[in-house]
Amino acid sequence: MLTIVVDAMGGDNAPACVVEGTIEALRESGNRFEILLIGQEDKVTPLLQQQDISDLNLRFMHAPEVVTMEDIPAIAVKTKQESSLVKGLKLCKAKEADAYVSAGNTGAQMAASLFVLGRLPGVLRPTIYAYFPRIGEGLTNIVDVGANVDCKPENLVQFAEMLTIYQRYAAQIETPTVGLLNIGEEEGKGPEFLKQTYRMLQEAAREQKINFIGNIEGHDILSGKATIVVCDGLVGNTILKFGESIPHFLGSLFKPSLEKLVLSGQLDKNAAALAGKAFKEIFEPFDVEKFGGVPFLGVDGISIVGHGRSSSRAIKNMIYMAEHMIEKRVNEHIAEVLS
Amino acid sequence: MLTIVVDAMGGDNAPACVVEGTIEALRESGNRFEILLIGQEDKVTPLLQQQDISDLNLRFMHAPEVVTMEDIPAIAVKTKQESSLVKGLKLCKAKEADAYVSAGNTGAQMAASLFVLGRLPGVLRPTIYAYFPRIGEGLTNIVDVGANVDCKPENLVQFAEMLTIYQRYAAQIETPTVGLLNIGEEEGKGPEFLKQTYRMLQEAAREQKINFIGNIEGHDILSGKATIVVCDGLVGNTILKFGESIPHFLGSLFKPSLEKLVLSGQLDKNAAALAGKAFKEIFEPFDVEKFGGVPFLGVDGISIVGHGRSSSRAIKNMIYMAEHMIEKRVNEHIAEVLS
Repeated sequence: MLTIVVDAMGGDNAPACVVEGTIEALRESGNRFEILLIGQEDKVTPLLQQQDISDLNLRFMHAPEVVTMEDIPAIAVKTKQESSLVKGLKLCKAKEADAYVSAGNTGAQMAASLFVLGRLPGVLRPTIYAYFPRIGEGLTNIVDVGANVDCKPENLVQFAEMLTIYQRYAAQIETPTVGLLNIGEEEGKGPEFLKQTYRMLQEAAREQKINFIGNIEGHDILSGKATIVVCDGLVGNTILKFGESIPHFLGSLFKPSLEKLVLSGQLDKNAAALAGKAFKEIFEPFDVEKFGGVPFLGVDGISIVGHGRSSSRAIKNMIYMAEHMIEKRVNEHIAEVLS
Repeated sequence: MLTIVVDAMGGDNAPACVVEGTIEALRESGNRFEILLIGQEDKVTPLLQQQDISDLNLRFMHAPEVVTMEDIPAIAVKTKQESSLVKGLKLCKAKEADAYVSAGNTGAQMAASLFVLGRLPGVLRPTIYAYFPRIGEGLTNIVDVGANVDCKPENLVQFAEMLTIYQRYAAQIETPTVGLLNIGEEEGKGPEFLKQTYRMLQEAAREQKINFIGNIEGHDILSGKATIVVCDGLVGNTILKFGESIPHFLGSLFKPSLEKLVLSGQLDKNAAALAGKAFKEIFEPFDVEKFGGVPFLGVDGISIVGHGRSSSRAIKNMIYMAEHMIEKRVNEHIAEVLS
């Protein structure tokens, strides 16, 4: 049976949310796996004692230290050896557990995963992606979104290869299309390093490692021209954060607009409330909780990175994601293609 | 009296829209300047003959060739010497005109402006910016948005300096804040070239050339943390195109959402139409026509670059923008600070 380590201390609503999501995952799945919840005893055990969990495959392990959102990744990894983060990943490294799930400090989790788990054979730099809604079915997956800046062409090519494998085995998309994010569609556009990347992506496509469709532009992200969008972490991170700020920004414009219509008597309150609800619903495709998080691709182990805002539902889905990634042998496939 | 050259052939709706915008500008301003409309005689003169323009400061000049949206910039500039683009800019270079305005092929206009007008003293690379709506008053101005990729730190610093001067003299914002777009707020974040840029922007701030507020992130663009956002053209171009695609994408989600409410009888048709109108209105701050276009900053002359979709209102506003830039002596100020 698989053992999944869940960081009880990670996320804005930890540990309550994490405990809840963990219990939900075990109940819903019928104890399909074992969960090792790790965190500060005085914070976590009172939450566990409130419920009858005697029927669940749930263990608890004390970790006295906590890596906070404010911690500087490289320093936290070295100085907080007794944190749930470092202890949890070490259990994976020692094969006492199969995966690590957290909604804590993303930078620290990436640094610790790299440091403790190491890289898969052939992987130059592990990477992290993010998904965007798009017109029609499916998602647009952007890689890298901040784990790597100063990327070389060979890094971008590996990001495309790793995410292709992940999409193929974990998301059942046989040949996901790969687009290179650039300032124009034509070959030969953009900075030098993207011109080189273009040629290397063509080469990877000839070897049937990826399904490269050429350069794409910023407006192609939401139109869904490619399933995988490759870029340097600076570009991807900026797009991700810009995208995340849109619902709030537009909401701050739409709400007063509806209120004005109500005040002027053109729209009744009930209709305005319905329109407001419909407006909120259009942002549901942006819902970060659906999948819960994303795997840190390329490390020699499974480390699922969640959003700080993760709810219990997000935690639950991250646990399922970890299980799925193990079952589909994603890491074995990555090592096979990249080494 | 100023003479402004207007490219009759530039834009998706040229020449009709351009002729209309030109006439509007002259009528509205009371012939405050002279306009030299330049383009293909057989296309433009029939439009002019339809109206009584005898009272206007309007001249026409024939240019047999046309640079299209499909033309490759560097090639068009060399091979289409008899185009409105090249002829118009040459008039500016020869001081027979004071500014050039076009909604045509942006890449070709930048290439031709650089080639024909040259750079202002001290300017390494001319640049182009774009404006975004933001929470509260004012706009967020992003520079560079595609004129320059493979930027060096000194290029980014000059972009910040030039746009500061433009905002100060043309938009009356005395000390616009400058933020460096990066993957994190803290100094020392991001790729090497941004770390160097950070230090050089600090230096420029000490010399009181700019008002540098440090690193900003993708979500700060719409929140309005900085008036000027500096980045490489690859990042800026991607954000610009991504942003432009948002209204259509969200509209494609909101419309069926409202229709569903009407069909289920929860919302009457009139209320849905009002909500739909309110929804459209929230995108008005994204209106590219308000200012019409942007100047190509750093060239030794005035070249206003418009969106291909420009309406007559956009053309009119670009003409005013050219006039304003001359009156405020923006180029003289740039040369003074940068040389």
